[in-house]
This record gives sequence, structure tokens and C-alpha cells, in this order.
Amino acid sequence: MSLKKRFLYLFFMLPSLVSAEDGSQLWLRYVPVEEHIAKQRQISLANNHESALLAKQELNRYWRGTSISMHLDKKAKALKEGYQIKSDVSGIRLTAAEPIGLLYGAFHLLRLQGAKVNMQNLNIEEIPDYDIRILNHWDNLDRTVERGYAGYSLWRWDELPNTLSPRYEQYARANASIGINATVLNNVNASPQILTSNYIQKVKALADIFRKYGIKVYLSANFSSPKVLDGLSDSDPSRKEVQDWWKTKVKEIYQHIPDFGGFLVKANSEGQPGPQDHGRTHADGANMLADALKPYGGIVMWRAFVYNPSEQDRAKQAYQEFVPLDGQFRDNVIIQIKNGPIDFQPREPFTPLFGAMKHTAQMIEFQITQEYLGFSNHLAYLAPLFKETLDSDTYARGKGSTVACITDGSIFSAKRTAISAVANIGEDTNWTGHHFAQANWYAFGRLAWNHQLSSEEIADEWISQTFTDNRDFAKPIRQMMMDSREAVVDYMMPLGLHHIFAFGHHYGPEPWGDVEGGRPDWMPWYYHNADTVGVGFDRTTTGSNAVSQYNEPLRSTFNSIETCPENLLLWFHHVPWTHRMKNGHSLWEELCFHYDRGVQEVRQFQKTWDKLEQYVDEQRFSEIQSKLKVQAKDAVWWKDACLLYFQTFSKTPIPYELERPIHELEELKKIKLDMKHHN
Amino acid sequence: MSLKKRFLYLFFMLPSLVSAEDGSQLWLRYVPVEEHIAKQRQISLANNHESALLAKQELNRYWRGTSISMHLDKKAKALKEGYQIKSDVSGIRLTAAEPIGLLYGAFHLLRLQGAKVNMQNLNIEEIPDYDIRILNHWDNLDRTVERGYAGYSLWRWDELPNTLSPRYEQYARANASIGINATVLNNVNASPQILTSNYIQKVKALADIFRKYGIKVYLSANFSSPKVLDGLSDSDPSRKEVQDWWKTKVKEIYQHIPDFGGFLVKANSEGQPGPQDHGRTHADGANMLADALKPYGGIVMWRAFVYNPSEQDRAKQAYQEFVPLDGQFRDNVIIQIKNGPIDFQPREPFTPLFGAMKHTAQMIEFQITQEYLGFSNHLAYLAPLFKETLDSDTYARGKGSTVACITDGSIFSAKRTAISAVANIGEDTNWTGHHFAQANWYAFGRLAWNHQLSSEEIADEWISQTFTDNRDFAKPIRQMMMDSREAVVDYMMPLGLHHIFAFGHHYGPEPWGDVEGGRPDWMPWYYHNADTVGVGFDRTTTGSNAVSQYNEPLRSTFNSIETCPENLLLWFHHVPWTHRMKNGHSLWEELCFHYDRGVQEVRQFQKTWDKLEQYVDEQRFSEIQSKLKVQAKDAVWWKDACLLYFQTFSKTPIPYELERPIHELEELKKIKLDMKHHN
Repeated sequence: MSLKKRFLYLFFMLPSLVSAEDGSQLWLRYVPVEEHIAKQRQISLANNHESALLAKQELNRYWRGTSISMHLDKKAKALKEGYQIKSDVSGIRLTAAEPIGLLYGAFHLLRLQGAKVNMQNLNIEEIPDYDIRILNHWDNLDRTVERGYAGYSLWRWDELPNTLSPRYEQYARANASIGINATVLNNVNASPQILTSNYIQKVKALADIFRKYGIKVYLSANFSSPKVLDGLSDSDPSRKEVQDWWKTKVKEIYQHIPDFGGFLVKANSEGQPGPQDHGRTHADGANMLADALKPYGGIVMWRAFVYNPSEQDRAKQAYQEFVPLDGQFRDNVIIQIKNGPIDFQPREPFTPLFGAMKHTAQMIEFQITQEYLGFSNHLAYLAPLFKETLDSDTYARGKGSTVACITDGSIFSAKRTAISAVANIGEDTNWTGHHFAQANWYAFGRLAWNHQLSSEEIADEWISQTFTDNRDFAKPIRQMMMDSREAVVDYMMPLGLHHIFAFGHHYGPEPWGDVEGGRPDWMPWYYHNADTVGVGFDRTTTGSNAVSQYNEPLRSTFNSIETCPENLLLWFHHVPWTHRMKNGHSLWEELCFHYDRGVQEVRQFQKTWDKLEQYVDEQRFSEIQSKLKVQAKDAVWWKDACLLYFQTFSKTPIPYELERPIHELEELKKIKLDMKHHN
Repeated sequence: MSLKKRFLYLFFMLPSLVSAEDGSQLWLRYVPVEEHIAKQRQISLANNHESALLAKQELNRYWRGTSISMHLDKKAKALKEGYQIKSDVSGIRLTAAEPIGLLYGAFHLLRLQGAKVNMQNLNIEEIPDYDIRILNHWDNLDRTVERGYAGYSLWRWDELPNTLSPRYEQYARANASIGINATVLNNVNASPQILTSNYIQKVKALADIFRKYGIKVYLSANFSSPKVLDGLSDSDPSRKEVQDWWKTKVKEIYQHIPDFGGFLVKANSEGQPGPQDHGRTHADGANMLADALKPYGGIVMWRAFVYNPSEQDRAKQAYQEFVPLDGQFRDNVIIQIKNGPIDFQPREPFTPLFGAMKHTAQMIEFQITQEYLGFSNHLAYLAPLFKETLDSDTYARGKGSTVACITDGSIFSAKRTAISAVANIGEDTNWTGHHFAQANWYAFGRLAWNHQLSSEEIADEWISQTFTDNRDFAKPIRQMMMDSREAVVDYMMPLGLHHIFAFGHHYGPEPWGDVEGGRPDWMPWYYHNADTVGVGFDRTTTGSNAVSQYNEPLRSTFNSIETCPENLLLWFHHVPWTHRMKNGHSLWEELCFHYDRGVQEVRQFQKTWDKLEQYVDEQRFSEIQSKLKVQAKDAVWWKDACLLYFQTFSKTPIPYELERPIHELEELKKIKLDMKHHN
């Protein structure tokens, strides 16, 4: 270890002894316990499993309370990876069925300590809602990160397996602290190279570090790997040669990584190869991989994010393609479905595929990285977005069939349940670019463990650990976080508008966007359909009929302009500019008010933040202040771009009580950002 | 005349027959009278002077009222260039002592008609307050315009004298319509070339056009002309050879332009040559030229805008240099003094030289072009600024000795009185870049005629002629105009701050500005003196003692931080950040509130304007709308730049109720605008 690396290592291990607050410690800013306090209590452990030893180590370093005894109870299988915490006069007893449960329990205790909870009569039982709680890294082998806004990839492929960055272990510890137990290391737009023997050695090096933190490694697999890597004539899943190739490859992987998790596959989607190239179905492709993985306990996460430039509404296509395959997938295949039917927009209804495949395991895919929510420049706390989908009732088995219940195994029993999200992590010092974007990593982990937690509870936890639990700070900051995602919706795409982003980078507005000869379903006009009559995508029974993919009563509710929730109005309806909204505004006026409110909200965030300067270290204060400035400018950019553009159709003034545009539409149209490296 | 030019000519002559409203007609948007109405009344005139014939022509074309008889009464000398208008049942009688008075009277009648005044019992007598009402063009011979923001110079020197743009006559008519009777064609930073025989022919061509509109031509003279043009060993005014050169040159000019007005001279100022180069005084230099001009009735306007990088406060230097010369100037010399002691800032106190030379004629120099008020991008109605200086009491002869009375001859009798302003006119279609900047040209003319007019009256006149007299439009627009200059002060330099502009172009903010080895008196820090204690220029008796140049009670009023008007506080005092203002705010808070108010005001202007769209033609509406957007953005730029910079000294938060900055100070410091062509 070089001197510099040793220094960095020490730096991380002794967080409280240095005053720097650069965000590198995330929410793990525990203060080492003083020696005289440590002497007064005992942390006892009766086994030597490396995860359990890590638990002991964390408590030894940071626990200031009474003595703790840790126990493994292999019979308590119902706990899964969870734990029990009980306390009485004699001290605290932490019990788990798995060693990793003790580490999760230790972090739970440290959270309680941070929140100054009374430890007298604890009686806690925590069982994770999902078996697999997994991050999807869209990291390329050249260390660019698709839709990544926090620097290059954490994985230094060129140095691996010989040189090991200290950040690998820091990453694993951070994930363990919030219960994340799995990671897909590479981009779903996968390079076949990841499956070469050379790269398997590199992956093994990471897996060896992650293992004691309870984290299994998965890989995105390119469906054409047999042909590309070893010159097979094709990668047709029905051919034995191809099947054998995968079996051999999987065997090789498990030789080096015995707890390898499995494959994530993006097939026949946005140009990726897949079984349909050979006349086979998604099920044929997924099952071939599943068969290869089965002997080792591995699984396939097969993505349902598929669409083609056809006559069909893009929002309908995943459902149309996958529902007919229901029941045809092996039991170690899980269909990975994005939360909304289009693509991680600021607001979408849930994907109707949830609950529509009653004999197929399903998992959700969220996006933590803010591809469509201002990158790492905009403060947008995403727990409310995650919750909105999880709590959405699909009515697949009557009332109460929420997306959460569909995917957590409580309605349709599943061999394994899973929940995933695209990571927002890179090698930036603070991991996520925006300090507040750490909260979204945190929130995903916490919700993957317990989807009943409220967004407010998660925010409170995160704030107190990441900054301070001083209520004068925490309360307004929680409010800011809670308001933030809706602010983004307001200044970007209110009332159900979607996908009017600039082509390619998805950062700025481009409702006028059009590329000659480009795919219609990649063009903003495809989604907003603005004309002199109105705006919005008619997905009613007289339009694309996407509403029919939803169960009643949603189908009828969405289908009627009168009952459709107004925050999804333009998702399901092409609405006249003069349409009366429930508050009496015309649609045009309401659109204007939403855009304006978005701007005003961000300005309010600035005020909130500036006012709390005294509670925050200088570096993080000013870095966040700068990000908020960018967001405030961008919000006005969005507002002006969208209102000035839509006004060319509505032909109606922006209500005069609202702040006026400061941009010229024609000037905004000329803005071209060079952001290809994020794609 | 080319077909295109003929078309343009027709276009201007028939304003009402075309619907285009591009601002080219200025406030002269009279509607030609219908033939049947014209037949019912008579416009009679008993002489054939060309100015009088123009008066008749205007009335014939546009007068809809009763018959008018025009009379020249050579004995009514007291009227000067003014007129009387009387009406009774038999019609209207317009009388003037000079032919040009009839033209002025005709335009007066057309103004009354536009304002729908009852013409039954008119009894009007108008006598101009100043004899010479003169525009100073800072136009270079290459057609760039120093501090010009409305395109290239109107004067097409390369085409003159053979080709005559129709705009020359349009220019003369517009000036005549508001009583301007003189123009300096070329920049005070004068090229000697203007005095060559070749250029005199060109100037003559313009003078021949302007003459019938009552406009005399003047030229800026370069003091080194004898040496530069004809190789004299120097231009020492005490040498006969030099004196003779000027006599010969003046004679040549008058041979071609018998009513030539005289010279404007910037000498020994900002690098221009002058008598001091030869050990002579300003009086020596001015008198030499005056002697040459005297036989022909010409005058010298000698600028007092002089300062050097010395120990002395720049604000004091004009006074120090000129007061000792009082009484030494010929009676055909007028000292031309800028309204404020520094340089056309958004707000300055009046220059204390006014009234301090009791035996020397003085005239004021305003700046219509907005060198320091946002160029032609910002709406800033300057009548309130002009009035603020004119109405300032100098106490030179006790209470009531206003700058207006000092310069109009009512306190110190003067052979000739004059008032000047730097023009904002260029070859832009609308003449002045910003449509609202036309109002400043208009206002200067009207105040030069009658400095008792209120800013509101002038605004009303201008609005009704330029747009419409509909009260629903005129009232809010007048309010916007009346508020506009103070808004600029607020977002640029409130509370007496001054000259913190970006070096060179004077458009954007640069309070941090510093140029290594540059003149201190060209650096913003010279003027704001910000430090950890406070901000402002100490010109009190314990500071630079500039206050001593003012008469009592001003000297004492300005000298005390308690009595100094707050809008000039930082002009006269270095004030602690914690100083309590009259409203209870600290100085820092008050500064923040002013900057913020400036921004809010411009946003209000945008609302005002947008709301009135129905009253304005499309082209002017959208052009003004665009300018207001720029102004709104610039106001925020100014606010953020100044507050973030001064905050590095005040170390105090911007009051949290105010909108937060959206810029980074370090980013703002990097902005370099390429605007050299305006210098």
C-alpha cells in the first residue's frame, strides 16, 4: 500500500479524528468510542464468521451503550437475513439466523444510538421484505458510466485483480449498513468482454472483498457472448453448442466465485442482441441461461424494458410482449420491470405488467441515478417516487394488491424475491456527485429492506446520520427533501407530461426535439402531442388503449378525463388547452402554475439551505449551495423552454401574475450540450 | 435615388398608409388628414421662409382642426425661437419671431391634437429655456460610435457629400419636433480629419439639410489639428502660426457653412491633446479658438471633464482645475460640465463646479446614450435623472440656485445659454436600439426647451404619440418608465455606489475589477473602497474633502453620515457594514434589499409589458419584450455579482427572506465581454 493510499485508508477508518467533511463518509460518520467508555461494556460473540466479526468490530469501535451479546440461531430461519434485538437490565441481546444478520443488527444498533433512542426495553424484529436487494451499475469496462454523474466507475478494471482500491471495501460496508446484499457490476448494455477469463479474475477480486459484507456479485451478460467471444456461428439459445458454451462459462465463473449471483440481461432492447434475433422468445433465452445457472443456485434477471418503433404505443409494448410468455419461465428467472412503462420519468404510473404475469416472478427496477431528474445537479429525494410505485394498487388480486405486495412474495409466492435500482455511485469523493443524492442510495437500501418505512422516516434517519439530528436543521431539511421530487416534476414535466428531454443526454428541455429520420418513439412530440387543440398522449380506449392494460377500477379511472388523477392527466389524455381543471384553472393556466411553482420551490430550497449554514461544515455547505444555484437556473430554463414552446400551440398568455420568461425560445433551441459521455 | 431608397423614402413620408410599426417613425406617427377634412380648413402663411414652409407642410398634412394662420413678428424678440398660439371662434393664430418658431409651434399644435386637447381658447406662449439645445454625437469617422448601442453612425461619411441618406432629413425633422436646434456631428475624442477640406464638404452637405429644420452644425475639434493636418511644429495656442491656422480653418468652414455653430473641445482629458501640453491653460486654449470663431458668431464649448491619476480624488479635479480660471474665458466660450463629478453614473450628486464660476458661462452635459445604464438593452427612462440634476440646488446665490437656473441665465446672465447631451442615435431602424430609449432623446429635447416640465408630463406626451393614448396602456407604462431609472440604480449601484463597472465596456458588473499597472482612478476599488469595516468613498472633511466644493448647507449635510441623503451615502462616506440606516436595517442589509428590489422591479416591468400586448403592434411588442428579458437576466447578474463580492468583506449573510444568488462569484469573474467596438 502506497503512503498515499495508507493515508486515505487511515482517513476513512478514523472519521472523527479529522475535521474534513467532504461527504466521503456518507451516513457512516460514527464517532469512535472513547477508551474509558469502551472498557465499561463488552461486545461478545460466540462464533468466528467473518461477517459476524465485522459486526463485532463496528460495535467495538462505535458503541457507547451497555454490553451486547451476539448470537447466531441457525434455527431461526424465519428471520432470513434479519435479526432480533432485545434488551433488559443485563444488556442487549442481538440474535440472527445468518452471520450477516448480526452485521445488519449492529448497524441497526448504531442507528438507534445516533437517534438517541432509549435502549432500556428494546424488542425489535427485523426481517427483510426482499431476498435480493440489488444495485445495478451501468458501468462500462472503459470506466465511463452510462447515465452516471458522479465521475468514472468505482471499478478500476485496469488495476484489478492485483491492486485493490480501499473504496471497494468502503462501498461494501456502506451497502451492508443499509442491507443491500447484491450488485451487478457492469452495464446492462453489456460488453461480452466481462465474461472472459481475464475479467472473471477481476470480478472475483471484488467478490472476495464484498463477500464478508454479505454482498453477492452479479454480471450483466451480453446475449451474443458465445459468438463474439468464441466464434460460435450464432448465439441461438436452441442450439446445444450455445447452451454448452453458457454451461461451461457459468461453471468457470463458479469455480472462482462460488457464491456468484447470476446474470442480468437486457435482450432485444434498444439494439442489444437477444433470442428474437434467432426466432426464439424471451423465455427461450432466459431459460437457457437459467438452466446453466441452476446447479449453482444462480438466477437470471431478465429485463422487460423492450419496445420497438411500431404502430403500438411504446408504453404498451412490455406488457404485450411478456404477458403471453407467463408461465414459460424457469423458477430461477425473475422478470425485471421498470417502475413506469416508459423510462424512469419524473412521474409515471406504475407499469401494468406488475401483477399481470401470475405465474412468473417479477421484480422492480428503480433508477437511483437521476438520468431524468437533473443528473447530480438537482436535489431530488427519490423515496417518495419509489414509494409512489411500491404503494400503487394494481388490483391484480383485488384491492390491496400493491406493487410492493406483488413483488415481495406476499400475494404470489415466489422462490426468491428481489428489488433493484440503477446505482448513482461513481468515484467522486462524495460517491454520488450531489451530497443529497447519497440519500437516494440510502433510501433504496432502506426500502428494499422494509418497504413500509415512510419517506419521512428514511429522510430523518439519513439527515441525522449525514448531517446532524438538531431539529432546527433536520426539520426544514426533511421538508425540503420531501418537496424536492415534486418540484422537479413541476418545473420539468407536470400533469403527466413525459419524455420531453433533450435527445441523448436527457438533461435539459427539448419539447421541440426532432431528429430527421430518427425513431418517432425517441422524439418528444411522440409523447406530448401538442397541437392547437391541446396536449398529451391519448391512451384511452379511443386512443392507444394503454388503459386497458390496467385492472379495474384503474382502467375506468384513467380512461375518463373527469376521474383521471390530474398528476397523470397528460399521460392518459390529449387534453384541450381550455379544459377546466378541478381548481377552476384552464389546463394551460394550470400548466403555467405548475412550472412556476417548480421554480419557486427551488428558490425556497435555496433559502432553506442558506439559512442553515451554521449547522453544516463549510465544504458541504458550499458545494450544496452551488448545486442549488444550478438547479434554480435550470428550473427557469425548463419553465421557459416548455411554456414558450407549448405557448406556440396554446396561443394563450402566461397568466400575468406569474414571473415572466427570461429566455427566448429560439435561443433555447440552439443550446446543445456535449454530454455524450453520460450516455 | 435607387428604387430601394425611393421605397424607403415613400415609406417614411406616408407613415399611416403602411401597417408596419418598427419604431422608425419615432413619436411622429401622425395620421395624414383625409382630403375632405383638409378642404374644410385653411393653413395660411404670409412668407416663404423655408422653415415656415415646413411648418405649413406639417399642418397641411396632419392637421384635422380649425383653420390656422401663421405670422412672423420680427419685433417679438422676447419669444426667441418660441411662439404664441391663440385661438378664438375665427380659428387659431400662430405667431413667432423666427421662422423656426413657426415650425416649433406647428409641432406643438400637432402634439395638442394627439392629446385631444380642446382647441377653443388656446392662449399659449412658449419660450425656450436654453438658446442652444444640442446633441453631442460621439460618432467616429469610420462610423463606429463610441458608447453607441444603436448600430453604426447615421453619417455615411464615405457616401457624403454626393449621396444623401433620407435619414438625414428624418433626423432633422425629429429634432425639430422637440426643439433641438444644434448638433455636434463627431466624437469629442476627435479625429483631426474632420477639419480637412474634404470633410468640410461632407459636413456642409449635412448642414444644408439641417438648416431649414433650424439645426446648426458644430464639430468636435482635435486640439492638435494644426500639427497633425498641416505639419506645424506644435499646436501651442500662444504661437501666432497656430492661431492663424485656426483663423484660416474657421474662415474656410464659414465659407461653406455660413451658420456653422462652433467647436466642442475635449482637451487634456483622457489622453486628448490640449493647451497644457504646451504649458498653457484651458483658458488659453479655449480663447484662441473663440477668437477665431468670434467674427462669425461661432462659439466654443470647452469640456470640464478633466482628471488625472493624482493624489486628488477624481471627483474634485474639474473644480480644482477650472475655478481658478474663472473670468479668464472669452464671452463666446461656454464650459461644458457633466451632470455629475465622475462620469454619467446611474446616480451622482451634481458637479459642484455648477455655480462656482460666477464669471464664466456654463452648460450641462447629459448622456442620453446609456453607457452606464445597460446600453440599449435596459429600459431606463432618464427624464428623472436629468431633472434630478437640473433641480439640484447649488446654493451658489442662496436657496433656489438650482443647476437649471445656473445654466439657463436666470441667475448669472449669459450671452448665450446652452444645454447638451450625448446622443443615443444610430442607424438602427428604430434609431436608438431600445424602443424606449427614444423617450430619452425626446425627454432631453423637451427639457432643453422647458426644464419645468415634469418627467411624468414628458412621459405622457411620448407614450401617447409613440404608442397610444389609451389610459389603460399609458398609465401603467408611465409608471414603469417613472420607476425604471431607480430600478437600474437599485440593481447596479444603490446608495451612492458608483463606477463598479467592467473595465472598458461599462456594461456588466466588475466590483472586483483590477488591471495590473492600470490607473487607480479607472479601477472599481478606487470608488467603492470595500473592506472588512465597510464600503464607500470617504469624501468628508476627514476624507478627500470633496464636500468642501459644495456650498453650505450642502457641505455640512453631505459631510455628516447622519444627514447625508441615503441615496448618496456611499458617495460621500465610507460606511460600516453595521451602520444603522433610517429604516433600521444595517447598511449591509439595506444594500441587499436595494439590489433585490432592482431585480423585482424589472420582473414587474416584464409583467406590466406582457399584460399590455393587446395595445401594441406585434413587432415592437416582441422586441421590447426581448429587451426586458435581457434586463431581467442582467439585473440578477448585477445583484449576484455585487452582493457576492461585497459579502467577501461584510462576512454577513444576505437576509434570508431575499431570493438567493444563482451565480458563483468565481464564475462571474471569468466573464469577459467583447465590446471594444462600443468604446
